[in-house]
Amino acid sequence: MSEIIATYLIHDFHGNHEKKAEGIALGLTVGTWTDLPQLVQKQLEKHKGRVVSVSPLAEEERANRYFDRKVYRAIIKIAYPASNFSNDLPAILTTVFGKLSLDGAIKLIDLDFVGDIQKAFPGPRLGIAGIREKIEVYDRPLVMSIFKGILGRDLTFHNEQLKQQALGGVDLVKDDEILFDQEQTPFIERIKTGKKILNEVYEHTGHRTLYAVNLSGKTFELLDKAKQAAEAGADALLFNVHTYGLDVLQALSEHDQIKLPIMAHPAFSGALGSSSHYGIGYPLLLGKLVRLSGADLSLFPSPYGNVALEKEEALAIACALTKDEPSWKKAFPVPSAGIHPGMVPDLIKDFGLDSVINAGGGIHGHPDGAKGGAEAFRSAVEAVLEGKDLSEAAANEEALKKALVLWGGL
Amino acid sequence: MSEIIATYLIHDFHGNHEKKAEGIALGLTVGTWTDLPQLVQKQLEKHKGRVVSVSPLAEEERANRYFDRKVYRAIIKIAYPASNFSNDLPAILTTVFGKLSLDGAIKLIDLDFVGDIQKAFPGPRLGIAGIREKIEVYDRPLVMSIFKGILGRDLTFHNEQLKQQALGGVDLVKDDEILFDQEQTPFIERIKTGKKILNEVYEHTGHRTLYAVNLSGKTFELLDKAKQAAEAGADALLFNVHTYGLDVLQALSEHDQIKLPIMAHPAFSGALGSSSHYGIGYPLLLGKLVRLSGADLSLFPSPYGNVALEKEEALAIACALTKDEPSWKKAFPVPSAGIHPGMVPDLIKDFGLDSVINAGGGIHGHPDGAKGGAEAFRSAVEAVLEGKDLSEAAANEEALKKALVLWGGL
Repeated sequence: MSEIIATYLIHDFHGNHEKKAEGIALGLTVGTWTDLPQLVQKQLEKHKGRVVSVSPLAEEERANRYFDRKVYRAIIKIAYPASNFSNDLPAILTTVFGKLSLDGAIKLIDLDFVGDIQKAFPGPRLGIAGIREKIEVYDRPLVMSIFKGILGRDLTFHNEQLKQQALGGVDLVKDDEILFDQEQTPFIERIKTGKKILNEVYEHTGHRTLYAVNLSGKTFELLDKAKQAAEAGADALLFNVHTYGLDVLQALSEHDQIKLPIMAHPAFSGALGSSSHYGIGYPLLLGKLVRLSGADLSLFPSPYGNVALEKEEALAIACALTKDEPSWKKAFPVPSAGIHPGMVPDLIKDFGLDSVINAGGGIHGHPDGAKGGAEAFRSAVEAVLEGKDLSEAAANEEALKKALVLWGGL
Repeated sequence: MSEIIATYLIHDFHGNHEKKAEGIALGLTVGTWTDLPQLVQKQLEKHKGRVVSVSPLAEEERANRYFDRKVYRAIIKIAYPASNFSNDLPAILTTVFGKLSLDGAIKLIDLDFVGDIQKAFPGPRLGIAGIREKIEVYDRPLVMSIFKGILGRDLTFHNEQLKQQALGGVDLVKDDEILFDQEQTPFIERIKTGKKILNEVYEHTGHRTLYAVNLSGKTFELLDKAKQAAEAGADALLFNVHTYGLDVLQALSEHDQIKLPIMAHPAFSGALGSSSHYGIGYPLLLGKLVRLSGADLSLFPSPYGNVALEKEEALAIACALTKDEPSWKKAFPVPSAGIHPGMVPDLIKDFGLDSVINAGGGIHGHPDGAKGGAEAFRSAVEAVLEGKDLSEAAANEEALKKALVLWGGL
């Protein structure tokens, strides 16, 4: 039997969690049960939701303070038969967290796809292994950087920034997520001129850098636009999935005329994930769901910067992206914000080799510019892999030394 | 100059709201300012965000309790030049609440569309006036009912429920939002058989009932499916917009081969709107944004039932849907959940004549079934419009009397 098991964190004032769970299992499937004739019960059996478990949690002072009374907390798991919905995330989310999202303090924290329903979600097309093959880097975390202050600037400025980042040896460069189709830096032009520059850098350095262009615009134009991007030679797509919907990401990932690596940006996800009591847990939203919708890389707030997640939560996102799963390739975790070269040892300790080290300010703010910043990151990664202390490595690596002096880490 | 002015509610621990606002206005547009050369400043002037206002709010005990320290609250307004984004909601939401949604306790509570950018959002195709013309009811709130316990049932069951509801005189019947394309009740068949039944009822009673069929499935199949629905004679579409994205609603509304009234369902919106500190305010999400994306009717939790909003918030949603706007037709507010005939006087007092009275249990749970429930609602509406007390009207209206006895209101 195929089903989806949803895990919820609930806060309520009564503590009769079994009754609440039973109400959800019936209310979101067949409606009622005991008052149905036996014949109808038989007919509806395969659609009936099931309470899998109800696990009360210890009282939490913070929740009591917030609601200003004693709050009963629990984790409950409900199974929804796959025969209740079509094989798409809008139907699944409507079933498991449609009306329920409006029903008091309840947060959706996990979804388990059991049985055949898994096949409806092919997951990343390339995944970590596929991206590594494209870049020909197999044994270290990738290094990525972000364009900076690009809005309103022209293609020459854009190209020069791309070149500097690539010259320093980053593996990936992504568009700013707020760069849409500006007259001065049109989508297809960015791809074409970017490709030319990155090929020139490759001729010069022997290092391959991929450029992820921001795919934006109206939903029903995205498939054509992504096809044009692929034809124009795009390396990868950046996609603000949470302002479109996960199903749109899936369609982009599955399309046989696109076939590009897709980088899911977390823009807008804070509106869904920030509350402790409501919404969707980040490990589910930025981890499992973007992975099974086809993202090859997922950006999320690092546990270090200003825009920070709790470390436990950031690690849980990374785990959801990289856990062994028979049905889905792994996707790269990209903890972002507040990253500078001095943090590389911590990043590798926390997120492992199968991760992407991503920086904006930590690249462009380097005393030698983006090229120096990128070199500093690459040197830091190399040092850690060789088991060297960063200070030790900095003795022979000028760019790394300057970075450590500026941001700390010596 | 065209721009979008975003209003945020912020909670922070420092209270330097001006600095925070300035950081947002620059950080989400041109990045930096004072350190840019004058020539570049001139070039970027038209892209620079602007702090419109910063209004500190009084201290709130609840917020202090939740964050366990003194919290500084404020309403801030930031203007984003329309030249920064393409004319679509994904780009706008990414700009005004992309990264920012992840940046501490911040809630997006309003968006003002100033100038030409309004034209990119045509709003409801029919609106309240257009829906009234279809039903030929001009002077009272509409009455709507919902299918009940339909999952797993066959077309005969579905049809019979539709007939009973229509016979009682409801103006609209909507699919259950968790009814997707089931083998036993296929989409096009529901439309075709539904139309036949509603025509028969019309022949019999002279009253026109519209049936809103749930448009579901994969995003990129929706336009075709909606066109097929229109060709098959569908009256209206129900749409779980928040699991797809507002831009998808807009595409459905704008399409010239669809042209059907669209009813926006609030499923999943609780994940965005429930928290006091994070996410998106309901009046913006279920009011203004669904209206300008083209919904003709918007369902939202009523302030009366179990799944309840604060009354003030429910009224603000209704206001956002019905406020006079030069650019957008009005959309019907549909406060839902926990509605029975005894509440009609309150509903009309709170939401006015230009609203839809919507019930599920309050229709189907009537002692005489759905037909009786619908009759009771229609009698209650008539009584209020005639200035009669419900008890007074119930003397001559058997169905209303039974409803008031069962649910209260006598």
